[in-house]
Amino acid sequence: MTQKNDDNWTGEVDELLRVGKGFVLADVDPESTPGYDGGKQGAEKDLDTGARELDELQERLFAQSRGGSATASVLLVLQAMDSAGKGGIIRHVVGSVDPQGITLTAFKKPTDEELAHDFLWRVEQRLPEPGFIGVFDRSQYEDVLIGRVRSLAPPDEIERRYGAINEFEKRLTDAGTRIIKVMLYISYEEQGSRLMERLDRPDKHWKYNPGDVDERLRWPQYMEAYQTVFERTSTDQAPWYVVPANRKWYARLAVQQLLLGALREIDPQWPVATFDVEAEKLRLAAT
Amino acid sequence: MTQKNDDNWTGEVDELLRVGKGFVLADVDPESTPGYDGGKQGAEKDLDTGARELDELQERLFAQSRGGSATASVLLVLQAMDSAGKGGIIRHVVGSVDPQGITLTAFKKPTDEELAHDFLWRVEQRLPEPGFIGVFDRSQYEDVLIGRVRSLAPPDEIERRYGAINEFEKRLTDAGTRIIKVMLYISYEEQGSRLMERLDRPDKHWKYNPGDVDERLRWPQYMEAYQTVFERTSTDQAPWYVVPANRKWYARLAVQQLLLGALREIDPQWPVATFDVEAEKLRLAAT
Repeated sequence: MTQKNDDNWTGEVDELLRVGKGFVLADVDPESTPGYDGGKQGAEKDLDTGARELDELQERLFAQSRGGSATASVLLVLQAMDSAGKGGIIRHVVGSVDPQGITLTAFKKPTDEELAHDFLWRVEQRLPEPGFIGVFDRSQYEDVLIGRVRSLAPPDEIERRYGAINEFEKRLTDAGTRIIKVMLYISYEEQGSRLMERLDRPDKHWKYNPGDVDERLRWPQYMEAYQTVFERTSTDQAPWYVVPANRKWYARLAVQQLLLGALREIDPQWPVATFDVEAEKLRLAAT
Repeated sequence: MTQKNDDNWTGEVDELLRVGKGFVLADVDPESTPGYDGGKQGAEKDLDTGARELDELQERLFAQSRGGSATASVLLVLQAMDSAGKGGIIRHVVGSVDPQGITLTAFKKPTDEELAHDFLWRVEQRLPEPGFIGVFDRSQYEDVLIGRVRSLAPPDEIERRYGAINEFEKRLTDAGTRIIKVMLYISYEEQGSRLMERLDRPDKHWKYNPGDVDERLRWPQYMEAYQTVFERTSTDQAPWYVVPANRKWYARLAVQQLLLGALREIDPQWPVATFDVEAEKLRLAAT
């Protein structure tokens, strides 16, 4: 991945945040801003600059797929504890892209119909088509996170799922999808103050759910479940990135960089016309 | 509809562009900018101002629906001849809104499965849920536009569809959806130069399709089909708006105003908490 040259960047997000061998979640500092020292003010400007590049790369990706043979797509998977900022990423990073090139899915508690199928059934239906950037707000990983913490499935079924996910993702990447899996990592204290802010502001009450505190009480079990997810499913073809997210501006910048990195690697090209351009000019001019 | 007070606005788009009794498409000037005299420069600033209001109204609409009982939603239907600027509206007007509150559907040539059902079947599946702004890039109206011009269905079936659409839309509005139907109206000459620009620029070739000229050759039949659509389906509950679109900046401003008008009329409110806020504060503070 080639990082954009910019004074504020001191390292490559793709390397710094990637979950590799021996990764320990507890060692990550949610306050940190790996690879970036531009601060909040620099981040605003750099996010704008990145948005412009993302815009062009996305249009190329989309255009390329219209040419017929290009199958490349991108899938951004967002996982996090409540209030970690998934919504902000979607609004401020994904939201800067032409909506015509995005397919966004917010996975909720599975319906009865979804539960009647294998856990990957509903996911399969929401995969991005060639040329699209798919965004998953929660994903198949809920089935090994809340699924594990809340014992929503027997232990051997949970165990089976890690392998099933790896095979599933392998198939997607083989077919041309670049998968970026992001966990937004906030501290327990930060979550406490963000939830309290929702309670303090009547215009934020709708974002609060008493169930949020129930899940918060299981914080250590969730961190353990995430650690296991990282160990079992951070593969070469679909690595995990743990993004420190106490500073929202950093998390947004970092996820944007990951998207940019994936698109730069795809390096999408304007497709060559499948028709005779000069003949069409004449035909059009005659109208 | 209350129009935002702004020096550049001289009239209400909702009134000026609405298709009423006796409307004649041929009398509309695609170069005109009804109700607005701020020019291209003013439009840029006013579009930004509108985007901020749209952003807040959309969030309220979404929040209100989470409260449980509010059923309001918005459906923006976009129809136009090729190159009239639907994509630009989606990118610059819809694109300014949080993608989490938008469901966008681009209706293509119907698939075999879709053709095996009534023409409204595929549309029904893409209606916005409460709290959402649905956007249709093409719609059920294709089935009485290209359907009519290209005789894709027998005349009596085309005839049946106008009534079926009106009943369908009545049901939607009764259930809480505000429908805004927009035809972007460009001149024949303007389409000619826009298509030629696509041919002139290699990075725009992918947007060009030789079939575009085939349709262009049927321009008068399309205008007639639109005129019939307006006469038969511009109803009180779901009126049509013909938006002069030779000037892209005006079309964007005007569609934004129509969206704002619909949302202001819904006047969505932050929902009241369904839980005991003080009790939750204590519970959270104890974690």
